[in-house]
Amino acid sequence: VNAEIIAVGSEMLTPQRVDTNSLYLTDQLNALGIEVIFKCVVGDDRALMAATIRTAIERSGLVILSGGLGPTEDDVTRDAVAEALGRPMRYDEAIFEGITAMFARLGRKVAENNKRQAMVIEGAEVLPNDRGTAPGLWIPIERGGVLLLPGPPRELTNLWEKQARARIEAITEPKVIRTRWLRVAGMGESDLDQLIAPVYTKYVNPATTILAKMGDVEVHLRARCETAEEAEALLAEVAPPIEALLGDRIYSRNGDPLETAVGHLLRDRGATAAVAESCTGGLLGARFTDAPGSSAWFRGGYLVYNADLKRALIGEFTEDPVSEPVALRLAAAAASKAGATYGVSVTGIAGPDGGTEENPVGTVWIGVAGPQGAEAKRFRFPGERSRVRTLAATYALDRLRQALIATQI
Amino acid sequence: VNAEIIAVGSEMLTPQRVDTNSLYLTDQLNALGIEVIFKCVVGDDRALMAATIRTAIERSGLVILSGGLGPTEDDVTRDAVAEALGRPMRYDEAIFEGITAMFARLGRKVAENNKRQAMVIEGAEVLPNDRGTAPGLWIPIERGGVLLLPGPPRELTNLWEKQARARIEAITEPKVIRTRWLRVAGMGESDLDQLIAPVYTKYVNPATTILAKMGDVEVHLRARCETAEEAEALLAEVAPPIEALLGDRIYSRNGDPLETAVGHLLRDRGATAAVAESCTGGLLGARFTDAPGSSAWFRGGYLVYNADLKRALIGEFTEDPVSEPVALRLAAAAASKAGATYGVSVTGIAGPDGGTEENPVGTVWIGVAGPQGAEAKRFRFPGERSRVRTLAATYALDRLRQALIATQI
Repeated sequence: VNAEIIAVGSEMLTPQRVDTNSLYLTDQLNALGIEVIFKCVVGDDRALMAATIRTAIERSGLVILSGGLGPTEDDVTRDAVAEALGRPMRYDEAIFEGITAMFARLGRKVAENNKRQAMVIEGAEVLPNDRGTAPGLWIPIERGGVLLLPGPPRELTNLWEKQARARIEAITEPKVIRTRWLRVAGMGESDLDQLIAPVYTKYVNPATTILAKMGDVEVHLRARCETAEEAEALLAEVAPPIEALLGDRIYSRNGDPLETAVGHLLRDRGATAAVAESCTGGLLGARFTDAPGSSAWFRGGYLVYNADLKRALIGEFTEDPVSEPVALRLAAAAASKAGATYGVSVTGIAGPDGGTEENPVGTVWIGVAGPQGAEAKRFRFPGERSRVRTLAATYALDRLRQALIATQI
Repeated sequence: VNAEIIAVGSEMLTPQRVDTNSLYLTDQLNALGIEVIFKCVVGDDRALMAATIRTAIERSGLVILSGGLGPTEDDVTRDAVAEALGRPMRYDEAIFEGITAMFARLGRKVAENNKRQAMVIEGAEVLPNDRGTAPGLWIPIERGGVLLLPGPPRELTNLWEKQARARIEAITEPKVIRTRWLRVAGMGESDLDQLIAPVYTKYVNPATTILAKMGDVEVHLRARCETAEEAEALLAEVAPPIEALLGDRIYSRNGDPLETAVGHLLRDRGATAAVAESCTGGLLGARFTDAPGSSAWFRGGYLVYNADLKRALIGEFTEDPVSEPVALRLAAAAASKAGATYGVSVTGIAGPDGGTEENPVGTVWIGVAGPQGAEAKRFRFPGERSRVRTLAATYALDRLRQALIATQI
């Protein structure tokens, strides 16, 4: 079965917006052995949408639409699909009651136009959405099905995971897919590729994908075979030499993000962390506390954006605020003042202004203080302000991770 | 005249690739008053491509294809366009000589398959490409034209600038586009829609779009007229009643994000801010410092994730940490200890654990302390951990904004 993806919404046809949902869906569909042969973006135009859907249904077994399920007049995806399939819609009181209850929990009153979201196409299964008001719809048709998902990525991915994937798997010919997922910190995409390409390029199956985003690289191995045994055997052959090359740069093998991996290393050692942040201004603390349960290992910290606040934390200093001694003292003070086992500090120049000859924009000192003493390292991150800040927070987490794995338990 | 954009290439249908050419082209077309009504990505499949092109030509005056002009067998864009238009192709010796000369300059020998790049569709104008081997093609048709551009962005943009734009301008009726962009905090998408729909639904032009993401809603008005004066007059008619309904919920009219709008309000008052964050763990500070130049108005703050750190900041307390008095004292202490004019505090239950009957997951107290005294407000945010945290940071910024605009300068 082949698939087509239709992203709906006039805002998706502006120069500012990219349809990232289709990338997620393509990845998920490929994992089920389904090929995406066509994807498109169509505005809030019912007739054009219905024509597009009709064409898609004629040539592909699976048609997925994202967006246009909201409560407003210009949300016409349901209507367009009903028109394309030539099926009537009915009002589903139970859905509207669910929406009403959700609004009530939030202390808000449901609006009359939310009734549009309770319209169901004949023959459709309703896919409950616990992250928004618009339910998804799954409409089995002769050679496959039509799937309607809400546009906001957090709702779309959640509905896909919990409701849609299993239904689509059920219409797919049985092929077994097994994956390995390595997450790697502290090296760039092309360095990593050069390192492991000699291994993975020898194999078409498993397929190897390298995905990079700001200081974080993922390696996916994907074996697709007739049986689970075959797939596992393939992975058991290819994954170990890759893991050996990457060594302790691998921070997770189960998809955990870096902050969770670091949190679990702290937890396993009965240790806690605190931060002192200058240029990241809270980003590092936000990363630490992104992980559920982080109160077990994160105590808090100090946003020392202004020099006065740095002095209040570490006392008077004559050095440049972006320097090794200040980074070391910030890390040590964060730990001792917050009563944490480890202190992590970040002080640097995120830009666009503030760069000097010695410390150009992108210069960041990261300090880690712990039971084994304190150390600091200088980084020079490329790119504009938000990239420098994100990279600084990621590398700070990785510096702490390095200190933790050096500590045997 | 409306336009459609077709990106060609099987690699563009993988989870790793985004069609950024269409964003550039959309921006360029909009500037000429041309609306993009549909865009799609199609693999290297000649029949599917020809069908897609035929559909596009039927409904839109301008069809732009990018990619698939290379020398290899799977570069079938030229063939597909010729098939869709029912026109023959001819071999153009002059083009091949140009390609041969370009290769010679690079010290390389031209390959036999480069002859494919010298095939020209009948009636097409050849658009010379000085950054690559594939020339573009411009094929005037009855109501507009079909434009073929090479896929590599530096070739595509160069050909557009030097060759294509002028040809498309020549077939365009003069149309001017003017926009208004309002950003709104503190209300949901459907509430906002209900509030302003009575105004905007009376007009097709300007077109109104409402975009929402986590606690932040944007209203775009887009007027398309024969002259700039007409477009401005239309906006001058429709925008004021919408702005009057939204009042001071509008925080920016120039696209500035909330943190920048708040920063500028502080700056204009010669004021500064500091934070005390519990459940947001740094997200609020990160938002404040996202804006370049934020050191002028943001001093820093305290991540009081752990109860000990809350006590270190405000002294002993017997109340629930998620309560009005604690929020008030955190805000006041953040301001006084950091030497800031305003203190903003966030204390709540982000989940997934930690909810109680009185304070279920999503409950957040936000405090603001300033020269006019301190106040705190209780919120109940929907959704999972990351949404609660993001909404808490956004609403905290908005609470400070409300306090600031209540202060005349």
